[in-house]
Amino acid sequence: MVERRKPIWVKEAIEQVMGYKIRGEKELISIDDCDGRYLAEPLVADHDVPPFDRSPYDGFALRAEDTVQASRDNPLNIRVIDEIGAGQVSNKNVGHMEAVRIMTGAQIPIGADCVIMLELVQEEKSDDGTFIKIKRSLTPGENISFRGEDTIKGSPLINQGVLINPGIKALLATFGYSKVTVGKRPVIGVIATGSELLQPEDELVPGKIRNSNGFMIESQIIRAGGLYKRYGSFADDLEALQNAIETAMAECDVVITTGGVSVGDYDFLPEIYKRIGANLLFNKIAMRPGSVTSCGEKDGKLLFGLSGNPSACYIGFELFVRPIIRYWLRSERPFLRCLQGTLNIDFPKPNPFSRFVRSQLIYKDGKIYAEPVGLDKSGVVTSLAWADCLIVLPGGTRGFQQADQVDILLLDDQQGSEKPWQEAKLSKL
Amino acid sequence: MVERRKPIWVKEAIEQVMGYKIRGEKELISIDDCDGRYLAEPLVADHDVPPFDRSPYDGFALRAEDTVQASRDNPLNIRVIDEIGAGQVSNKNVGHMEAVRIMTGAQIPIGADCVIMLELVQEEKSDDGTFIKIKRSLTPGENISFRGEDTIKGSPLINQGVLINPGIKALLATFGYSKVTVGKRPVIGVIATGSELLQPEDELVPGKIRNSNGFMIESQIIRAGGLYKRYGSFADDLEALQNAIETAMAECDVVITTGGVSVGDYDFLPEIYKRIGANLLFNKIAMRPGSVTSCGEKDGKLLFGLSGNPSACYIGFELFVRPIIRYWLRSERPFLRCLQGTLNIDFPKPNPFSRFVRSQLIYKDGKIYAEPVGLDKSGVVTSLAWADCLIVLPGGTRGFQQADQVDILLLDDQQGSEKPWQEAKLSKL
Repeated sequence: MVERRKPIWVKEAIEQVMGYKIRGEKELISIDDCDGRYLAEPLVADHDVPPFDRSPYDGFALRAEDTVQASRDNPLNIRVIDEIGAGQVSNKNVGHMEAVRIMTGAQIPIGADCVIMLELVQEEKSDDGTFIKIKRSLTPGENISFRGEDTIKGSPLINQGVLINPGIKALLATFGYSKVTVGKRPVIGVIATGSELLQPEDELVPGKIRNSNGFMIESQIIRAGGLYKRYGSFADDLEALQNAIETAMAECDVVITTGGVSVGDYDFLPEIYKRIGANLLFNKIAMRPGSVTSCGEKDGKLLFGLSGNPSACYIGFELFVRPIIRYWLRSERPFLRCLQGTLNIDFPKPNPFSRFVRSQLIYKDGKIYAEPVGLDKSGVVTSLAWADCLIVLPGGTRGFQQADQVDILLLDDQQGSEKPWQEAKLSKL
Repeated sequence: MVERRKPIWVKEAIEQVMGYKIRGEKELISIDDCDGRYLAEPLVADHDVPPFDRSPYDGFALRAEDTVQASRDNPLNIRVIDEIGAGQVSNKNVGHMEAVRIMTGAQIPIGADCVIMLELVQEEKSDDGTFIKIKRSLTPGENISFRGEDTIKGSPLINQGVLINPGIKALLATFGYSKVTVGKRPVIGVIATGSELLQPEDELVPGKIRNSNGFMIESQIIRAGGLYKRYGSFADDLEALQNAIETAMAECDVVITTGGVSVGDYDFLPEIYKRIGANLLFNKIAMRPGSVTSCGEKDGKLLFGLSGNPSACYIGFELFVRPIIRYWLRSERPFLRCLQGTLNIDFPKPNPFSRFVRSQLIYKDGKIYAEPVGLDKSGVVTSLAWADCLIVLPGGTRGFQQADQVDILLLDDQQGSEKPWQEAKLSKL
């Protein structure tokens, strides 16, 4: 039977889904394994930075008061009484007309209150010892990085939910996190449906195509920060599919099916939602592509029914599943980052529903442009490979023209957004 | 002894380094392991796309010529002679006033030359069989995706050296790549030097700090696509350091040291370059930070001496080591992507050398701005964590002001650039 479905707004669909958001568990892992993981607790300074008064340069630590008379015409001779490398601490007190040779990062010795850079002095060795000639005066505190001036012990530096990048890994090492508390990755079950699906290793046979959506979603899950569990491809066999979905719902945190959600006769998903007793959140969204995206919930777990169309499937994942994964990983900005830019070509096709167009960002003369990829025939195949953003064209009766200002959702960004993209209610559902 | 060094241009340093670029080996891995890896061969279509004439919609396949008279006032009754799902092929010929019910993606049956969408017809069942009412005429080819119209078998779709993202993984599955030829990751040896270095698990002691550069570089290596091999931290002990470097040079494809490259007395690297018989490419670059970045070469292998200063170390890696790794992985765009944008704040400090400022991109009203991170004291610590780009301020005698146009190098981008950033020769070395 052809079922008539009531579409809901993208915004509303996202809200429905986020009604079931959960913060995942934490786990403690070695700093060596933390790349690409997400902090599950704020990163806190375990000591002042700098941890002691130190020299930012190679040079000589001395007393500013001794240099008051120094000038080009009146160079002063200062005795070098010690020499310390980074990591060493001088046990000498710097007294009147004395200096200690000091390396970048080394602790300022007692008595000294300033540093003169190596390049600015002349060093002279004699039988009487080593001396430096100073030709300018210094002020107290000059060229000293003071303890705690960058960060006070206990300060939170990075929020929970942030992806660990090289800069954050450096902070973890600096502050003694030999073990790091990260978000335990959610396990997302993936089920491909449709009797037309072959595996990559299969030879093509008439009428069939290879399953690519399953692999694509698995890769999107990894990119979003989750783990996938594959339940294979199912032909349109109701019992087998139901079994697989029930197993996946029991074993995983979230389950995704792809295909089998169209309004065609062979669409079993609505029936399966009923059979497993899932609460249907929606089965039609006012968007293109992906209007047949559906989502159900059972015992607090989400079951997404993404379209079998590759672009619709891809976009459905990024709009609805990604924020659930990022929230799970404790992100405070789980949604795709949105920015404004200029449409680089005409897009004349009007549409009653909001359209999400796989696109590429173009930076030109300090401005942001975006251009759909894959509008030409040959680009259809590779459009998802090249897309780094989605242009959002709000639903309405007109098309869009070059130079129109549009919303752009970034796909490769890690900053994210606190709120989802807001659709203008330009059209009546 | 204080050694006087001759600085070279950043551009020249990059050219020197790239003189030793090598394409790495390839390896064949399962499609399941390909996320985050780089294609080592172009991705080629193994079949036409679509592989057969197919329907882009759920609907009915029929003959356009039978519909010529159809209109709202003159609906025509067409007999439905078969029903096929995606993946099925009808063995019936579609004849005069006949149609086959067809699912999205299914092969067009013989005899039919167009498809009418499900939503546009009324289906009626009677004792005489199933009929659809058609109220409009169709043209031959309407609503048919023709074999090969998107891509012809044998077409190269994605270049070698490109990072495998979800869209590319979908293509790999589509075209039967159950195994994927990817670039074998280069192994980069990492050696931290400096007697001030503790490990993350160590308690802080007076005068010392924890080794963070080593961990940061390891993370940068992973982000760039390589594998790291850790040789530990070495105090400023010439023999031990030399041994570690020689072992690393033998075992790795590239070696990086951090620290020990300043002009201070405890800088052993120049001596080690001599001892191991390395050819010194440069030991000073006209840049801030990181002017003491050095690079040597032995038997075609590069030995980078990055600064012990975290920002200088970070930037030195991205400018000089990353392109070597990306080239190794067969990228045709191994350099950081460069774009133009507007400086968002004053940067009054003039500098004779080009300055690379760790910064954050800001998108505002369709324009690109960038703003240094960590100019305030507390930001110094976290600046590398928040940086997603580097602002390049060419060397000169003046500072820079808000609204100045500047070059921006992206750190998280995958598109890259064919050529390195070109420095304007504004200052005399």
